[in-house]
Amino acid sequence: MKANAIEQFGKQGLMSLLNAQVRSIEEGKVVIECPYSEIVSQQHGFFHAGVMTSIVDTACGFAAFTLMPEGYEVLSVEFKMNLLKPAKSDAIVAVGQVLQAGKTLTVCEGFVYDATMQKLFAKMTATMIAVPSSKFL
Amino acid sequence: MKANAIEQFGKQGLMSLLNAQVRSIEEGKVVIECPYSEIVSQQHGFFHAGVMTSIVDTACGFAAFTLMPEGYEVLSVEFKMNLLKPAKSDAIVAVGQVLQAGKTLTVCEGFVYDATMQKLFAKMTATMIAVPSSKFL
Amino acid sequence: MKANAIEQFGKQGLMSLLNAQVRSIEEGKVVIECPYSEIVSQQHGFFHAGVMTSIVDTACGFAAFTLMPEGYEVLSVEFKMNLLKPAKSDAIVAVGQVLQAGKTLTVCEGFVYDATMQKLFAKMTATMIAVPSSKFL
Amino acid sequence: MKANAIEQFGKQGLMSLLNAQVRSIEEGKVVIECPYSEIVSQQHGFFHAGVMTSIVDTACGFAAFTLMPEGYEVLSVEFKMNLLKPAKSDAIVAVGQVLQAGKTLTVCEGFVYDATMQKLFAKMTATMIAVPSSKFL
Repeated sequence: MKANAIEQFGKQGLMSLLNAQVRSIEEGKVVIECPYSEIVSQQHGFFHAGVMTSIVDTACGFAAFTLMPEGYEVLSVEFKMNLLKPAKSDAIVAVGQVLQAGKTLTVCEGFVYDATMQKLFAKMTATMIAVPSSKFL
Repeated sequence: MKANAIEQFGKQGLMSLLNAQVRSIEEGKVVIECPYSEIVSQQHGFFHAGVMTSIVDTACGFAAFTLMPEGYEVLSVEFKMNLLKPAKSDAIVAVGQVLQAGKTLTVCEGFVYDATMQKLFAKMTATMIAVPSSKFL
Repeated sequence: MKANAIEQFGKQGLMSLLNAQVRSIEEGKVVIECPYSEIVSQQHGFFHAGVMTSIVDTACGFAAFTLMPEGYEVLSVEFKMNLLKPAKSDAIVAVGQVLQAGKTLTVCEGFVYDATMQKLFAKMTATMIAVPSSKFL
Repeated sequence: MKANAIEQFGKQGLMSLLNAQVRSIEEGKVVIECPYSEIVSQQHGFFHAGVMTSIVDTACGFAAFTLMPEGYEVLSVEFKMNLLKPAKSDAIVAVGQVLQAGKTLTVCEGFVYDATMQKLFAKMTATMIAVPSSKFL
């Protein structure tokens, strides 16, 4: 696996803002957890759809990144979220998994569960792109 | 317009966390602005896709809400985001606009611009649902 | 299971046009097959994305329909397709599966495989709605 | 504009099967019409969502193609459709329009109207990819 996946995660201001933590990283699969608090809520006290999206987009992005060659970075091209249930839980657990890795584009499936992983709150499908690191200098 | 749209916005912990502010609300159209800072960034210093999604999903949700009858609340059913350009700007401006309002489902278009509204960073299409307020008691 | 699922399928002019056939129907899961011929092709001789969408949307719609109460019909609200590989095969096999059935909305996952079901050509996520049959009279 | 856009269209077996015809092609915008008949119907006599998708995906694909350099072909990466109204009309008119053209990826917006273009039946957002023609030999 690429050595710098965790380092990259640490550079996301948003993830530390949300107190999100990586639970596991393996090739093509990343799990991230985010605890509930007032800051992640929408007007009815559920997890905000945008927070669930942030966490699971990050999980999908890093899952794709683990399979990309050295010298490439990952960016989200597009994603779709289906919000299945109002998300009321002590925490959400987001799983990002590579469905198909290509040279340029990688398609991922993302799942947002409650803290016990019994309830599926949301489902994502995401397309990620590998961009040469030199483009970011 | 419904009196409580702004009040509802104020109840979103996430929006105050992100320092997001409503710029305008009219029937079927809501504009929200969010300033750049380290907390909304991803690993390359761009606005995190999840932040753009949070802001524009909120704009779309409240745009739908302005057209819903009294006694109903709004929830996101699903949305899709296309990230068109890496989002580097002092702020993002998100516009949520109703494409079609139905009794149960409302479809919205969302746009995320840079601070000057010259560059389109992202495009959302979202489906919102009207849920009787009594369901939230 | 609802008695009229197959009958409904037979009423779809498009499905007979494409020579599509139901392979299996069970509660919450429907499989449809469509043979390759020139009529389903795009300009490079692959299955047209629109044909794959037609078949898998139908599979998802009928999968949702099998779980709806009597007196309701199914309509597609929205769907997203990811085209993973150019689809070259003697036939495509589309699987539609209910991810979550609700009173009004049902979310389905759709998969389009090659004839041997070894290769995944495309992935759909779809939202279906139950509409009272009386609305169609 | 690229000389061979119309020629490419003619090679799509599906388009002639559906009696679809190009109404106009300009740089970044393509309009295609498809008449109603039993063959394009679903079980309630509306245009099948898959037919609308086929037509508007083709319009988006060729709109993207008009802006691609010589020596490249176009393939659909992914798209999302929102079905706004049951589609009952003598014909549908699909408009595909480029929202952003990139070197590799092009994002398009698609619209499916009734014959008079007064009613919007469906809305698509699509991502297209430019693939070197040599890959198809």
